[in-house]
Amino acid sequence: MSILVVGSVALDTVETPSGRAEEVLGGSATYFAMAAGYFTRVNLVAVVGSDFPEDYLNLLQGRSIDLKGLEIREGKTFRWKGRYGEDPNERETLSLCLNVFEDFHPQLSEDYCSSEYVFLANIDPGLHLEILKQLSGSKLIAGDTMNIWIEKRREALLRMLSGVDIFILNDSEAKMLTGEQNLIRAGRAIRSLGPGIAIIKKGEHGVLLFSENDYFAAPAYPVESLCDPTGAGDSFAGGFLGYLAKNGRTDEGSLRKAVIYGSIMASYTVEGFSLDRLKSVTEEDVERKYRKFKNLVRF
Amino acid sequence: MSILVVGSVALDTVETPSGRAEEVLGGSATYFAMAAGYFTRVNLVAVVGSDFPEDYLNLLQGRSIDLKGLEIREGKTFRWKGRYGEDPNERETLSLCLNVFEDFHPQLSEDYCSSEYVFLANIDPGLHLEILKQLSGSKLIAGDTMNIWIEKRREALLRMLSGVDIFILNDSEAKMLTGEQNLIRAGRAIRSLGPGIAIIKKGEHGVLLFSENDYFAAPAYPVESLCDPTGAGDSFAGGFLGYLAKNGRTDEGSLRKAVIYGSIMASYTVEGFSLDRLKSVTEEDVERKYRKFKNLVRF
Repeated sequence: MSILVVGSVALDTVETPSGRAEEVLGGSATYFAMAAGYFTRVNLVAVVGSDFPEDYLNLLQGRSIDLKGLEIREGKTFRWKGRYGEDPNERETLSLCLNVFEDFHPQLSEDYCSSEYVFLANIDPGLHLEILKQLSGSKLIAGDTMNIWIEKRREALLRMLSGVDIFILNDSEAKMLTGEQNLIRAGRAIRSLGPGIAIIKKGEHGVLLFSENDYFAAPAYPVESLCDPTGAGDSFAGGFLGYLAKNGRTDEGSLRKAVIYGSIMASYTVEGFSLDRLKSVTEEDVERKYRKFKNLVRF
Repeated sequence: MSILVVGSVALDTVETPSGRAEEVLGGSATYFAMAAGYFTRVNLVAVVGSDFPEDYLNLLQGRSIDLKGLEIREGKTFRWKGRYGEDPNERETLSLCLNVFEDFHPQLSEDYCSSEYVFLANIDPGLHLEILKQLSGSKLIAGDTMNIWIEKRREALLRMLSGVDIFILNDSEAKMLTGEQNLIRAGRAIRSLGPGIAIIKKGEHGVLLFSENDYFAAPAYPVESLCDPTGAGDSFAGGFLGYLAKNGRTDEGSLRKAVIYGSIMASYTVEGFSLDRLKSVTEEDVERKYRKFKNLVRF
């Protein structure tokens, strides 16, 4: 089954202790689509400017990503500049230019409106609400967010939350959203806001998945040579939803396996800048890490 | 097989968001012994003052802890006052009076010198070195530490490290000791300092175990109603080493199961002040949590 993703496609300039990458392909929908595209067909809805490099369009198309919904508008592409220090969980935004993204109001084509699997990648939750209004008959809608929307767009975010089946966020965002310092209680609190399934990402400490009467804890895949943390969360979501859409099941066992595949995709993303490592991931790579994951938690 | 533990026995006054406990039984060797005592006989070496309550002696003896090596000296028992805020990983020491502990130089009885299982609970690593000199023919020596010894007694700590088989510390201490921000690299670096096995405790994020060519990640047992984090690490070590000593095996499978039993003991400790919850833990309690742990990580 294919997945519809709506989010950002950007040109990123990133500094990390490993080096620097300039004007490279980034954005929440990009990372999601490249990770999900490993598993299934992805329909990408986003906007870029007329300066967007053709090589990047080719890269996306190469991963069975449908670009019918990628609007190319006169003007400049969304740009983000950021820096990570020794602690990969702390990033500093050096500059952010929305450019053509500023007037982005996604209009889904008729066939996209009936998408069974949908991912609302990290953008203003107001845009998520515009998407939710256009959808009908979706089987599974998942969404993501980030700290600035919790702070500044709380009301829209809460409305968006009541319209999704799965909500994914990181640990500090979960605490900020719910006011709970204990992550188990935070996970429960998120479920009480609407989504039947809550996923809390904890970076190098792994992932917690909360579903009805159940709770799953996965470690992160051990990454020794972290290069660039950008897109880890979006790639996690891509692997997670990609696996679910490919198999068409959302039982507890499938959700748990999906978390592992999500973690594997994230681990490849952070091994390189931009999509340098993720773009060339093979089935052999993924299954090798899956077996290593099994051994990692076995007792 | 019995375990020898050398460390502190103290009277603690603790404030947490859940309440306050005054002059209650604490200390690194106490928590270790009470957790390990669930599995096997423990020989406790420590010192208390003449003010040490008889009820507490009875409590320790009740958990098959041999008190032959607990010196009762004229004077006051070691006292610690501390406070935890909303973040259970951050604690503030309000006061610390070593009292009779100030002149503690443990002398092991002859039969204790040949202990097969030994735990050097968190005290000055200089005292650990005094113990190591007295031991002969031990099968497994494990040790713990804390931030102040890494800062102030680094040289003694490094000598102690080269004399133990297993070293246990928390994530911030692992980073401080090795200078590595990445915990996988930190774990490896600790092993290169001597111990064949390194264990990094990550509080609510679980535990990493590093052994030869292998790596194990366990989540923490989900505790929703944390009461008092004091002694969690010592109880973890007690459950861990208690399980190993009871079964007399140190293969990879046993080490992993021991980590789970350690985590279970720690989860009971933090559910109450002092030893309020841990002291009454039954086999049924422990095995129920073990089964829940299995389900928690299964995929």
